[in-house]
Amino acid sequence: MKKIRLFTPGPVSVPEEVQLEMARPFAHHRTAWFGEVMRDCTAQLKQILMTEYDTLIFTGSGTATMEGAIVGCHPPGSKALVIENGKFSQRWGLICERFNIDCIRHQIAWGTAIDPQVIADHLKNDPAITSVILVHSETSTATVCDLERIGKITHEAGKLLLADCITSAGALPLKPDEWHVDVVISGSQKAFMLPPGLGVAAVGPRAWEIIEQNKGRQSYYLDYNAARKSAVKNDTPYTPALTLIRGLCMTTQMLLEEGLENVWKRVAAQAAATRAAAVAIGMGVFSKSPSDSVTAISIPDSLNESELRKTLRDTYGMHLAGGQDHLKGKIIRMSHMGYVDVIDTLGAIAAIEQAAHRMGHAFELGAGLTAAQKVFAERL
Amino acid sequence: MKKIRLFTPGPVSVPEEVQLEMARPFAHHRTAWFGEVMRDCTAQLKQILMTEYDTLIFTGSGTATMEGAIVGCHPPGSKALVIENGKFSQRWGLICERFNIDCIRHQIAWGTAIDPQVIADHLKNDPAITSVILVHSETSTATVCDLERIGKITHEAGKLLLADCITSAGALPLKPDEWHVDVVISGSQKAFMLPPGLGVAAVGPRAWEIIEQNKGRQSYYLDYNAARKSAVKNDTPYTPALTLIRGLCMTTQMLLEEGLENVWKRVAAQAAATRAAAVAIGMGVFSKSPSDSVTAISIPDSLNESELRKTLRDTYGMHLAGGQDHLKGKIIRMSHMGYVDVIDTLGAIAAIEQAAHRMGHAFELGAGLTAAQKVFAERL
Repeated sequence: MKKIRLFTPGPVSVPEEVQLEMARPFAHHRTAWFGEVMRDCTAQLKQILMTEYDTLIFTGSGTATMEGAIVGCHPPGSKALVIENGKFSQRWGLICERFNIDCIRHQIAWGTAIDPQVIADHLKNDPAITSVILVHSETSTATVCDLERIGKITHEAGKLLLADCITSAGALPLKPDEWHVDVVISGSQKAFMLPPGLGVAAVGPRAWEIIEQNKGRQSYYLDYNAARKSAVKNDTPYTPALTLIRGLCMTTQMLLEEGLENVWKRVAAQAAATRAAAVAIGMGVFSKSPSDSVTAISIPDSLNESELRKTLRDTYGMHLAGGQDHLKGKIIRMSHMGYVDVIDTLGAIAAIEQAAHRMGHAFELGAGLTAAQKVFAERL
Repeated sequence: MKKIRLFTPGPVSVPEEVQLEMARPFAHHRTAWFGEVMRDCTAQLKQILMTEYDTLIFTGSGTATMEGAIVGCHPPGSKALVIENGKFSQRWGLICERFNIDCIRHQIAWGTAIDPQVIADHLKNDPAITSVILVHSETSTATVCDLERIGKITHEAGKLLLADCITSAGALPLKPDEWHVDVVISGSQKAFMLPPGLGVAAVGPRAWEIIEQNKGRQSYYLDYNAARKSAVKNDTPYTPALTLIRGLCMTTQMLLEEGLENVWKRVAAQAAATRAAAVAIGMGVFSKSPSDSVTAISIPDSLNESELRKTLRDTYGMHLAGGQDHLKGKIIRMSHMGYVDVIDTLGAIAAIEQAAHRMGHAFELGAGLTAAQKVFAERL
């Protein structure tokens, strides 16, 4: 018996019934049928993103969707403040540079969250800044920032806020309209429980003002104006990955049936249980501001991280991600997004205990599971 | 009993076993498992494209993949000659304009193919031209051009040739290396028998020279240099639509098992049979240079095209596409790509006969099927 248990922070496990729904015969995308799929999917997406903003669906990765937003929101004369605290936020700085967007790439230690006051100071000291770009939940370090407070600051300063919510949307509390986040981006292979291939965006009125003015200057395929023009007709400008959109229509419904607040609560409990377990078995939590959608477990120097993950994969079919760049060998990353519940999370903790025990790591077998059980008993 | 019979020129029917393969549990994309999928998929793709060129796989539509190629191949100082004879070739002209690429948009009547000599004359008269961009099989009008002869001309003139082979690759004879086509683009939802979501590109050494020089000036997500750097390691720079790539690995194998020349022969026979049937039932063939991957059937003024397609869809589950722009109401388009064989094609012809007969179109019932049968008997 060989099961695949996907705990990587994207892609994540996809519900079997969604996989089968996507395998059913389909029609063409320029039809009333697909229009209805798009309409329902968009309506549900808005509920999950808690937004009245126009939402868009792109065929491509989160990077593609973020590129379209960055290019669209930065006509000549713009200046972006990019907050970089990990692999993905760095990418948004690189995209600004690629497109010759004037930017400040403000770098802080990986695993730390930006102090909102630092953003306020930047905006005060440099009135040329027109936007702030950051990651809500930085997947590379499992670190969350205080997006609500940051939104208050950028809104009061009259600046745009673009947030990569790729591993927060649908997993963590996120209220773009209430928090004044102007652009929110996510991807199918995270809390939306689908295979990779789709990006989603929610774009508020202040961002649209800029994007509309920037008409014709943006890239073609990732042009937000074109995407919006089609979206109002429940359509897409170019041939979409329609099987995935059909799946998205189903997974968004599943999330709404569980109840958004219940999902947040369950995901947060899974993360808290994992953190408690990591500490209880003599490992640790890497982030100073841990996200609830993914946990970065610090691996002690005495343990070979690559061997640990190999054992997890080969013996228990348990797939976790390692660290990137200078965090390689230092952390393992475990997702709490997707089709994984409390029991699955306990299974992952059990596998980590077993593998670490085999490798001679000294800890009390069962301590991680016990710590996790207590968290679940308290929280759920 | 309600069957969906997809004869639209993309998306097309997907083999059931491929749909089920894509529905199976999957692992993360940064793994040895996915590296093997990419390796096998790429090797098979090269065989189908009959190329030794580096091939790339993008998550996105054909438009995305074409945008990346156009932007990559046109550094400042370039000048493109775009041959426009339909909806899709027009788009490549629009992309040139969007990216401020100096270009001549040479427009000819929809449904006609460019005379290669016209291209030769352009290149002779305007030495500033650095590239030719065209569509091999223009899906909007079902028209094919003589890519082999054009390749000879551009090669001799030392110009790049970029061909949208979205509805030709895997369906029609196509030999990029032998024909000197420098960039060939296609998409998953055509002859590759998959749902939409992937673009593929084969890029020759002369194009790479330009793309490499153009480093850092291209868009980020669709950057061909980045895609190539990953592709040599059987990887992708950003999270790929891995279920579709797994499917592509399977469909490319199926095409190779049938044998590429057999596929071309079968597709050509299906197209010839459809053309013969269209004439036999008092309709006609729209294109002056018909492609074998899709047929545009002219609809007589006495028949309401929209009602005809509605009847085909609602009564027989038979999905065909209509005309675009000024061809709306004038043609119906039927695909010969994807998971459709001789019997399916006869079924489509039968449905068109039935629907036209119901609508009072005067012709001898069975004449289309008879004409098609004769073509199949002669050709296969």
